[in-house]
Amino acid sequence: MGVKTKEAYIESLRQMKPTAYMFGERITNIVDNPRLRPGIEATGATYEMAQTDEYRDLILTRSPLIDETVNRFTLPPGSITDLVARVKINRAMGNRVGTCHQRCTGLDCLSALSIVTYDIDQKHGTSYFDRFREFLKHVQKNDLTCNAGVTDVKGDRSLGAHEQADKDMYLRVVSRSEAGIVVRGAKAHQTGSLSSHEIIVLPTRAMRPGDEDYAVAFAVPNDTPGIIHVVGRSSLDSRELEGCDIGNIRYSKYCPTVIFNDVFVPWERVFMCGETEFAVDMVVKFSSFHRQSHGGCKSGKIDCMTGAALNMMDYNGTSKAGHLKQKIIEMIHRAETLYGCSLAASYEGMQMPSGTYFIDTVLANASKIHEGKEMAEAIRLMVDISGGFVADLPSDRDFANPEIGALLKKYLKGKPDVPVENRVKMFRLVEKMAMESADTISDIHGGGSPEAHRVTLLRESDIESRKRAARRLAGIED
Amino acid sequence: MGVKTKEAYIESLRQMKPTAYMFGERITNIVDNPRLRPGIEATGATYEMAQTDEYRDLILTRSPLIDETVNRFTLPPGSITDLVARVKINRAMGNRVGTCHQRCTGLDCLSALSIVTYDIDQKHGTSYFDRFREFLKHVQKNDLTCNAGVTDVKGDRSLGAHEQADKDMYLRVVSRSEAGIVVRGAKAHQTGSLSSHEIIVLPTRAMRPGDEDYAVAFAVPNDTPGIIHVVGRSSLDSRELEGCDIGNIRYSKYCPTVIFNDVFVPWERVFMCGETEFAVDMVVKFSSFHRQSHGGCKSGKIDCMTGAALNMMDYNGTSKAGHLKQKIIEMIHRAETLYGCSLAASYEGMQMPSGTYFIDTVLANASKIHEGKEMAEAIRLMVDISGGFVADLPSDRDFANPEIGALLKKYLKGKPDVPVENRVKMFRLVEKMAMESADTISDIHGGGSPEAHRVTLLRESDIESRKRAARRLAGIED
Amino acid sequence: MGVKTKEAYIESLRQMKPTAYMFGERITNIVDNPRLRPGIEATGATYEMAQTDEYRDLILTRSPLIDETVNRFTLPPGSITDLVARVKINRAMGNRVGTCHQRCTGLDCLSALSIVTYDIDQKHGTSYFDRFREFLKHVQKNDLTCNAGVTDVKGDRSLGAHEQADKDMYLRVVSRSEAGIVVRGAKAHQTGSLSSHEIIVLPTRAMRPGDEDYAVAFAVPNDTPGIIHVVGRSSLDSRELEGCDIGNIRYSKYCPTVIFNDVFVPWERVFMCGETEFAVDMVVKFSSFHRQSHGGCKSGKIDCMTGAALNMMDYNGTSKAGHLKQKIIEMIHRAETLYGCSLAASYEGMQMPSGTYFIDTVLANASKIHEGKEMAEAIRLMVDISGGFVADLPSDRDFANPEIGALLKKYLKGKPDVPVENRVKMFRLVEKMAMESADTISDIHGGGSPEAHRVTLLRESDIESRKRAARRLAGIED
Amino acid sequence: MGVKTKEAYIESLRQMKPTAYMFGERITNIVDNPRLRPGIEATGATYEMAQTDEYRDLILTRSPLIDETVNRFTLPPGSITDLVARVKINRAMGNRVGTCHQRCTGLDCLSALSIVTYDIDQKHGTSYFDRFREFLKHVQKNDLTCNAGVTDVKGDRSLGAHEQADKDMYLRVVSRSEAGIVVRGAKAHQTGSLSSHEIIVLPTRAMRPGDEDYAVAFAVPNDTPGIIHVVGRSSLDSRELEGCDIGNIRYSKYCPTVIFNDVFVPWERVFMCGETEFAVDMVVKFSSFHRQSHGGCKSGKIDCMTGAALNMMDYNGTSKAGHLKQKIIEMIHRAETLYGCSLAASYEGMQMPSGTYFIDTVLANASKIHEGKEMAEAIRLMVDISGGFVADLPSDRDFANPEIGALLKKYLKGKPDVPVENRVKMFRLVEKMAMESADTISDIHGGGSPEAHRVTLLRESDIESRKRAARRLAGIED
Repeated sequence: MGVKTKEAYIESLRQMKPTAYMFGERITNIVDNPRLRPGIEATGATYEMAQTDEYRDLILTRSPLIDETVNRFTLPPGSITDLVARVKINRAMGNRVGTCHQRCTGLDCLSALSIVTYDIDQKHGTSYFDRFREFLKHVQKNDLTCNAGVTDVKGDRSLGAHEQADKDMYLRVVSRSEAGIVVRGAKAHQTGSLSSHEIIVLPTRAMRPGDEDYAVAFAVPNDTPGIIHVVGRSSLDSRELEGCDIGNIRYSKYCPTVIFNDVFVPWERVFMCGETEFAVDMVVKFSSFHRQSHGGCKSGKIDCMTGAALNMMDYNGTSKAGHLKQKIIEMIHRAETLYGCSLAASYEGMQMPSGTYFIDTVLANASKIHEGKEMAEAIRLMVDISGGFVADLPSDRDFANPEIGALLKKYLKGKPDVPVENRVKMFRLVEKMAMESADTISDIHGGGSPEAHRVTLLRESDIESRKRAARRLAGIED
Repeated sequence: MGVKTKEAYIESLRQMKPTAYMFGERITNIVDNPRLRPGIEATGATYEMAQTDEYRDLILTRSPLIDETVNRFTLPPGSITDLVARVKINRAMGNRVGTCHQRCTGLDCLSALSIVTYDIDQKHGTSYFDRFREFLKHVQKNDLTCNAGVTDVKGDRSLGAHEQADKDMYLRVVSRSEAGIVVRGAKAHQTGSLSSHEIIVLPTRAMRPGDEDYAVAFAVPNDTPGIIHVVGRSSLDSRELEGCDIGNIRYSKYCPTVIFNDVFVPWERVFMCGETEFAVDMVVKFSSFHRQSHGGCKSGKIDCMTGAALNMMDYNGTSKAGHLKQKIIEMIHRAETLYGCSLAASYEGMQMPSGTYFIDTVLANASKIHEGKEMAEAIRLMVDISGGFVADLPSDRDFANPEIGALLKKYLKGKPDVPVENRVKMFRLVEKMAMESADTISDIHGGGSPEAHRVTLLRESDIESRKRAARRLAGIED
Repeated sequence: MGVKTKEAYIESLRQMKPTAYMFGERITNIVDNPRLRPGIEATGATYEMAQTDEYRDLILTRSPLIDETVNRFTLPPGSITDLVARVKINRAMGNRVGTCHQRCTGLDCLSALSIVTYDIDQKHGTSYFDRFREFLKHVQKNDLTCNAGVTDVKGDRSLGAHEQADKDMYLRVVSRSEAGIVVRGAKAHQTGSLSSHEIIVLPTRAMRPGDEDYAVAFAVPNDTPGIIHVVGRSSLDSRELEGCDIGNIRYSKYCPTVIFNDVFVPWERVFMCGETEFAVDMVVKFSSFHRQSHGGCKSGKIDCMTGAALNMMDYNGTSKAGHLKQKIIEMIHRAETLYGCSLAASYEGMQMPSGTYFIDTVLANASKIHEGKEMAEAIRLMVDISGGFVADLPSDRDFANPEIGALLKKYLKGKPDVPVENRVKMFRLVEKMAMESADTISDIHGGGSPEAHRVTLLRESDIESRKRAARRLAGIED
Repeated sequence: MGVKTKEAYIESLRQMKPTAYMFGERITNIVDNPRLRPGIEATGATYEMAQTDEYRDLILTRSPLIDETVNRFTLPPGSITDLVARVKINRAMGNRVGTCHQRCTGLDCLSALSIVTYDIDQKHGTSYFDRFREFLKHVQKNDLTCNAGVTDVKGDRSLGAHEQADKDMYLRVVSRSEAGIVVRGAKAHQTGSLSSHEIIVLPTRAMRPGDEDYAVAFAVPNDTPGIIHVVGRSSLDSRELEGCDIGNIRYSKYCPTVIFNDVFVPWERVFMCGETEFAVDMVVKFSSFHRQSHGGCKSGKIDCMTGAALNMMDYNGTSKAGHLKQKIIEMIHRAETLYGCSLAASYEGMQMPSGTYFIDTVLANASKIHEGKEMAEAIRLMVDISGGFVADLPSDRDFANPEIGALLKKYLKGKPDVPVENRVKMFRLVEKMAMESADTISDIHGGGSPEAHRVTLLRESDIESRKRAARRLAGIED
């Protein structure tokens, strides 16, 4: 066992038999599906880069749990160094794949569980932490990818879990037996669920008395009976099915809705069950880790977008335009502020009772709020710099057509010394990075809604000390 | 003759035989093509609304040229009222179709020509203005839609027209005869070129001595021999071909690249030929009119996006959330500031020597700069309000699948009293308005690049009077 | 009588004997006070410009009420032309004085009263409209300046008028007699109250049953017994008292708190008294007019700030720096969008039952929201362009000091061909326009709080039609 | 010797006899001057906090150079821990004093010199590093405050140092002797120069061949003959002289222009002299450290402003308003992103050949660009939340006036349970933090112009690797 190559990873997925649908049809061969494979390749890059001289030392490390070399994507952080490595790896990956690599959410779940299961045990005398560690050993020894089953479909947003008309709008336990539990519900936006070996389920929000059935956490293989993956639409998905005009020729992203249609989970895979007061901890820990992850990968994606914009300037003959350089600076500025906040959240992390390290919540949320606005602006800047052919560019099939291909090559040429093919390819990449909804919508909604980030920021900030400081300067006695 | 119904308009297109390609194949039936028809329908709405009680008086008016009732989309503005009507019609249309209606660019060309041909004649003793008026009578009497052939492909952006390695990177006259001229070149982003009867070509930038062959303006039917329309890719184009998950069930947009492969133009359709010093006038007049048009239609599109966001709040159960109301206000604010500037540009218009009215350039450009940034923000707000299913929503085909359809309907339900179908449809519309590149990229690049708008703003503003005012207050003698 | 010269205006103020305090002392000579005179001069400019060839036709017009030529600052708008003239005069004035001219608020009160008094009479059979018209004749015949007594001090903001612990936190009627009423309360931020002949009082918010005593409107001379003007602090006020380092050598702004310490108002000057349901109309009409006014004068102030920044570029030797030109464009863009919205609000105005014209509320509020953010940005840009000496510049007294004056002149010199005195003066003007709190704070709070503008925007927009438009496109049947 | 108390610090300043002018007059008693003392108190706080239990361990540390406990404001960073401590101390100080504490610039000079003098010696065989270390021992043993003489007055900005018409527009060596050098020039914005014991002079920009006389660095006591401090104007300076309406009752900021009128510097205090190629290193190291410092202190100032805004909400009765809470979040968000970037720049620092640690330049500059825009927005938000009385608030003298004091106390009251005095004091503090130019202008221009930060960001970023990453994804072979 030990760390997997990309090839071994893909082969291991081939062994799984998940129930999956896409665009109304059942899919049986996941790995070779042209819509899903580029997503699997993106996750595969986390395996592949671990084998390169440049990134090996950053990505691989020793796990104290199994005393073996592991890929950091299976390692809950045990030190500040581990927290920082998360951000740096994510930035490198974001730049490398130019989209989401889809493996961070699983690690964010492992990290949250490695903190909260311990705390539950301390209060309730349960043994979730040990169960979790056994599961973690399995993950590390087999270099598995996990998926984060967090986002419930939520039904009527103005109501809590057990208040819903349909009790299944948040995933819940429908029965318990000696062997385990049966769960029902659905999780949306399951980034790369079919690229994962295991699905880890956590509650998506704080739970209150009456919500006991909803305070549940567990892990199951992605092909467990009753689990149905429905790959939804994203803006450019058909291009991959058509096999042309793809833009990013290597990588893509997909995020199924995953339905748990009465799924059995054995007790050894159950990590919380009924401890409602810990649901909020679980989701806050997960989402804080996840907001920190975004600070890394999204700054890496801006790096890649900046590179695309700079190439477009070269290909269009505009590389000396001062106003475009100013826009490049605006792009870099956004990448660095995002990265800086996420790094700081890591360096300012602290050890939790279980031994796992947790990031600084305030800084991680500040970073995510920043992302929510600034990624859109970075994309807008890339489009502005690149030019209008981010839309309306003729298809590769048109270029291949004998009647009009030569004319298109003639007219789409930019700088004379740049092959027209390169200019067309770079426009396609810009189009992909700007207009792929599976990727860009998560800039806003990934890791919880923008309002969730804001509320967290306010709640976690020390308000009273700021008020006191102002009163002292104003000369008001406390 | 006289104003056409939508049906007559579509029938008239059916009579045309343009040379068109899409995704590598020749298309012969334009009107019934599922990718093109929604664009034709959007333009058709300009005919259809003219027949409604609500909009008839706004859209139809009497043309002094032919002394008949015409659709305002064939009428160069002859008064302030005409200028203002342009904006109001565009706003109503933008809200009505939720995308670009694709008929404004032709009017913007007619308006520019009706000013500049007169000025050329005054200087050069030519007879372009009369020729143009004959053409305009034809357009008005037949209620034709025209397309704006302005944006050349441009080659190396750091070089002028005649400096290019390939002399055809800007459209040019390659030969002249007694009967007319032959032109060669290509025009990009030809919004709705196959929904148009006529293509009007103008130069895309200022021309200098040496550029005489490039200073050319003319009009030809869209099926003139040598003209090739290549419909390029846009982000959601496949959905229309698939016939499902369309979002906007009525309307869409497409923008071919149009190649002029040695096209003959008879003299009576030539409106400029060699008068280089007027090229800048032609493009400035056109683009100023077009920037004003955007202020109308894009504020109308924000109206429609605001409506979509409000419906989503109803369907999600979030209509009472204060922070979402604040975001709705931000959306409305952007629509109104855009609309306000565009209206002001109209009310502050002035009569030109030919009798045609021209808008205030400073205000029109200020409006377009505003659009370039604020449309992206309006879209971001709509996505934020609506929720994550702007991406990853299962396909209509999944909902129709007997194995999983019922489960999806169960889990995608929001507020209990709202049919799940409505929520799904509204998410699809939001996706279409947010992620359709053929539409959204023009928010940035339509009517010239953002830098063009900025340079125009600086050049047209009275800088010296501002400096004098400051010096007077500072106590500096002039 | 008829329109006054600036000199006659100042002489007329000299005849008044208001009770005024400043910085702890009673002031008796208002007109020659060095802190107040620059404010009086700013209002005086509205008289002076009316006598110039350039602006006479814009500022003077015929009043149908008295059939004489009047200054437009005494004319409630009777046509679209009148509405538009307000904005254009305000822009010209803002550029001319580089600050607030302080005469618009009175006109905004006259305009509101000329609409709402009529409506009250229609419902209640009162005779406020006639009373008001008599008062208006007096104002017009004597070319008077009026002050807007609108902003109550408000006490606890979470409570309504009659719910306050101290019943006087909103101005109210404390007694009624056959001759008139006695009022008590205080109005804050009374821009130019001592430069005004008359103070017009309106309610500052909607009133409810129980608030009858607070639903009061009237006009009294500014030196009526019981009225106390307290001139508060602004950031640069001491400079004017010191008589050096003034920056704007001609004009300034001041805004007293005005206390109504049991002031008697005769019935013929009472324009509302107890009709609570009309309080909201009064304040909405006033504030909408006032928000439109801001769109004019603040864009004029940006013009002047842009001029100052351009002069600084000349004096610093940076006039060719591309990045500074980009910032100049950003400044112009803000002036024009503000102006455009305000103009549009005027052109889209409509006639009210009394015959007076009212602006489009949505556009006027959109303009004010824009101001609230964009004026701060325009100031920031001016400071950025000008350089660091917006702070820390040695005093004129240092330049005059024989020991160090020559050294300072040597070292503060910028471009060799620009006298050092001019550079120093221009820095002072920039400092004044950036840092004078009496002026800049109104960019945010003038015309009501930012939230008030936002709430108005939402309330006045047609929400339902937008929702319907979106549903139609999504394919949802109503 | 060893670390000083605040009292000892002030006493030590009393022993110095600098030549100083303010508002045209010579000042001899610096320490008791009411305009200067609040600045000295702000710097004094760096001594005072070092004696508190809460901050002692953060501020004091052992210097390896003298093997004694020192205040970190005298310690060039020798580790990542030292770099991080800089930011945390600055944030605590910013919150504590609500303005600039004025001691960071000296440390930034010491830090730059401790890197670059070593590098010069390595190349040129000079002994600047040893000289500098002797000076540093003196600073550490006496716990001295140093001032950064960096910003030259610059004359014509379009010309370099030796190209100026007046050769003294950048500080230069005018003669050399065996004993030392004589320098002439002037340095602007010398934050707290009279609160400092020593003035350290560095070049303000890159120097080229021909600029040898300008490539000079040295340190001299602030009362060295020939040095003239001219305290310039700031917006609220008169308040301190008047002794009322001060706002921040403890602290303030001032920034003289310091003229070097042929000042002799002995060789042992000269740290660079003629090595033009190192001038750029000197200024880049200084300014990068200084941009990092800003990230700390300015986030601390936002903390204090947030506290003031929250107090105002309590005092106004608006603490439950949702839209104001949203604005508080916006303020916190800005503090945290600024702090995060500055922290990250520290944690990502690296050791230089001399042993001193240097921060990450890209992140430090990203932070400063952020500050340049976001501080203005944070101030705008504080003003928005607080209400209109940030301007126009009656003077304390008015409140003390027996005729109107009681009326003002009555009418300025907000929430009934809050003493009116407290509300007035808090408004004054907000006014001070929003409108004090000596403080706020440095948000934009401190640490070099905004354009300098942007150019640095672009230059220091790895552009090529980003371009390569994009080409790989687009499928373009290198």
